[in-house]
Amino acid sequence: MVSKPAPDATRRSEKSRRAIYAAALALVGEVGYPKTTVEAIAARAGVGKQTIYRWWSSKADVLLEAFLDLAEQAARAAGHAPDAIPDTGDLAADLKAVLRATVDELVDPRFEVPSRALAAEGVVNEQLGREFVAKLLEPQLQLYVARLRSAQDTGQVRADVDPRIALELFVSPLAQRWLQRTGPISYDYTDTLVDYALYGIAPR
Amino acid sequence: MVSKPAPDATRRSEKSRRAIYAAALALVGEVGYPKTTVEAIAARAGVGKQTIYRWWSSKADVLLEAFLDLAEQAARAAGHAPDAIPDTGDLAADLKAVLRATVDELVDPRFEVPSRALAAEGVVNEQLGREFVAKLLEPQLQLYVARLRSAQDTGQVRADVDPRIALELFVSPLAQRWLQRTGPISYDYTDTLVDYALYGIAPR
Repeated sequence: MVSKPAPDATRRSEKSRRAIYAAALALVGEVGYPKTTVEAIAARAGVGKQTIYRWWSSKADVLLEAFLDLAEQAARAAGHAPDAIPDTGDLAADLKAVLRATVDELVDPRFEVPSRALAAEGVVNEQLGREFVAKLLEPQLQLYVARLRSAQDTGQVRADVDPRIALELFVSPLAQRWLQRTGPISYDYTDTLVDYALYGIAPR
Repeated sequence: MVSKPAPDATRRSEKSRRAIYAAALALVGEVGYPKTTVEAIAARAGVGKQTIYRWWSSKADVLLEAFLDLAEQAARAAGHAPDAIPDTGDLAADLKAVLRATVDELVDPRFEVPSRALAAEGVVNEQLGREFVAKLLEPQLQLYVARLRSAQDTGQVRADVDPRIALELFVSPLAQRWLQRTGPISYDYTDTLVDYALYGIAPR
């Protein structure tokens, strides 16, 4: 029999890959980052340890990709591309829509439990924290930078504003309420953040 | 000899109390919250375990008071009362001054190391997180609420603004940069946050 390439093997790989992502996310949520091991991920995913090491060099790498995949799925489920913030020309509306989708994601247990475990580890483990911020969080924040720059071009944001700081006025409050449970999270709340950030809290 | 009350005993108690605070903060920074025990705090402080249980009912209680004490000392070292934000009549200047003092505190290792350990635990341990937010963080946030209300009285903040949300526009970005290391922290940065929050990023 002539050995045929790809289709079956690709499907098998894809299935293993998904099982490994799911196992890694479930484990980190259950036992925390320090106690999550490549062995345990392999056992739970029903694959050999070597399968994991063929594709990734460490548990941090597996988790990084598992989270990238999760974020991409969440973006698609929310009906928007994972790599851009909509630009309808109405900045307030676009930011509110994306933040509402983020609210949905933050309260979804599939996302919340592993994300909390990873965020907690990142607070005390500087190397891991910096890697995950650089590869996961910052690329998402840069989407806001791009959207705010486009708003500067159309005059909806002042030209002297630093977009990288400005985005934190609505992103960071939501992040802190979620991470530290300092207050309830809702669409009303994120809509209000956008209005305050755009127009300021001082009288106009 | 007639037993004389207080002075010596009070001094001794005060010294033990300080040693216990210092031991609790050092330990939580070194080994994390889960591995910090009342036994280890007692041993490091050079007191008996019963001394600790005479004053506190759990390690969470010891740590809570140790952090309250640390925050109070930091506020006094920064030259302001720990229970109010200055009200000179100039809202922007007052907020900038308090946030600059907070920057100093956040980068001081005596504060940073134990605070990170506790914050990380609060992210995954909901009960502890909620207790520390309620007793440590929220009372500090309420000082901003009071200052913003006073600014509403003098017309420096719009009457329809919710002060509890508004304060997050400058407090949460600093908190996230510190907690998640998403960017550098400086006086320029916190000054900018205050300006953006007060006047908005849209043209006036």
